[in-house]
Amino acid sequence: MPRNQRKEAFDLKGSIDRNSYEPAYVQLMNLLKSQIASGQFPPGSRLPSEAQLCKKYNISPMTVRRSINLLIDQGMVDTTQGKGTFVKPIALSSVNFSLTEFVDILKEDGASVRLLELNAVKASPEAAAHLAIDPGDRIIYIRRLIYLDKDPVLYHQEQLVCDPKRPIVEDEMEVTSLKGLFTGLNQSGLKKGQVAINATQLSDQEAGWFRLPMGSPAIRLEHLFFDFADQPVSWGWFVCHSERVLFRAAVGPW
Amino acid sequence: MPRNQRKEAFDLKGSIDRNSYEPAYVQLMNLLKSQIASGQFPPGSRLPSEAQLCKKYNISPMTVRRSINLLIDQGMVDTTQGKGTFVKPIALSSVNFSLTEFVDILKEDGASVRLLELNAVKASPEAAAHLAIDPGDRIIYIRRLIYLDKDPVLYHQEQLVCDPKRPIVEDEMEVTSLKGLFTGLNQSGLKKGQVAINATQLSDQEAGWFRLPMGSPAIRLEHLFFDFADQPVSWGWFVCHSERVLFRAAVGPW
Repeated sequence: MPRNQRKEAFDLKGSIDRNSYEPAYVQLMNLLKSQIASGQFPPGSRLPSEAQLCKKYNISPMTVRRSINLLIDQGMVDTTQGKGTFVKPIALSSVNFSLTEFVDILKEDGASVRLLELNAVKASPEAAAHLAIDPGDRIIYIRRLIYLDKDPVLYHQEQLVCDPKRPIVEDEMEVTSLKGLFTGLNQSGLKKGQVAINATQLSDQEAGWFRLPMGSPAIRLEHLFFDFADQPVSWGWFVCHSERVLFRAAVGPW
Repeated sequence: MPRNQRKEAFDLKGSIDRNSYEPAYVQLMNLLKSQIASGQFPPGSRLPSEAQLCKKYNISPMTVRRSINLLIDQGMVDTTQGKGTFVKPIALSSVNFSLTEFVDILKEDGASVRLLELNAVKASPEAAAHLAIDPGDRIIYIRRLIYLDKDPVLYHQEQLVCDPKRPIVEDEMEVTSLKGLFTGLNQSGLKKGQVAINATQLSDQEAGWFRLPMGSPAIRLEHLFFDFADQPVSWGWFVCHSERVLFRAAVGPW
């Protein structure tokens, strides 16, 4: 056996507890993770082979593969065909942000929604382009202000395609529908969406609502949602002050 | 057999091709996905049971579980113990953003880095707090401007803990090191990091570099990186004009 192979096998720590409620592949994933985190398998190094892991922990190749696949999904290792599995250095390219903090605003107990406007209007050329309709076609224009306790914290405006088969229901004007969109409880017939985050500045009106200086840095979250016929049906965006949300992410083994 | 069970089994489409290079569990995942996307299994509906899927597609329970686990990982379904697997409505809470567009700036052919400053300075109270050192301790202060062709597009400033055992190498001043951080090619001994995105405005100096009005909306990407002893070693941030990057994400079955 070549020297470096023996060394790798020798270095493996821990064991699989067959009486644990945790499946063996989860236990192995955690064992490998903690050895990566401890620096024992530094970035760029090769993990022990499938055969070595099977032998050391007395488990099946399938179990090893499931563990490795989980580590790949988490961006911690990469497998190169025929060469083995390597520990990935941390990289900004593998960072993933979620909208948790944004979503949490609407989950808070004191959250409520005030409807500012609900009108049938003619689509602007820009709205028509997003919604794949003709400029001048009638759309529903909705503007809402979301409060936490007594303070407005989030502005939302949305333009909806008018569908004679699917009249706007009361629900769509209420906080419940908006909460559903955030938390996945709505049954609105939306199939998929595109979302984008960018930096903007508070308009005169937004600044007035939020009682902040006009032009303050703000986050804009734009959305375009599609129905099950793959037609765009809702285009709009949320605006809030930059200090209200921070998009956080972690990278590497925490 | 109860009526609704028979109906579910009857509705299942497609079959598994055993001669395909694609593993059966990937094929089943795609079959289920396309039936979710077509609206056949609308949000909130229950997928056929494991037993039904095994029987219909002539596959093992393990294969079915792997497919379902992949759909869970993708946020498309949820399993409730003892009740079955349900199609999740799209929700902003499950949206994941990546830094792809940000990272791509440095990957472009014309990307280069100009070092604006590299100094040993005394840590400010804020830097000391982030880096877990005492205010006044010596740190390395680095400021860089990243160009695309001849245009400055990204500003980066970073404060590094002085480690007598790990002197600052030439590499850390070069584009290669910064590229490595983005793309995962660096071997700098960094174990993990925290990253945050927020909206800001271009300072007078930043606006001058980017030839944009001072106060223009901008994105700030802050980072704090740790070494393998879990000590913070690098704190800093990138700033770029809001029109330079847009953080995009998709939700639901595309």
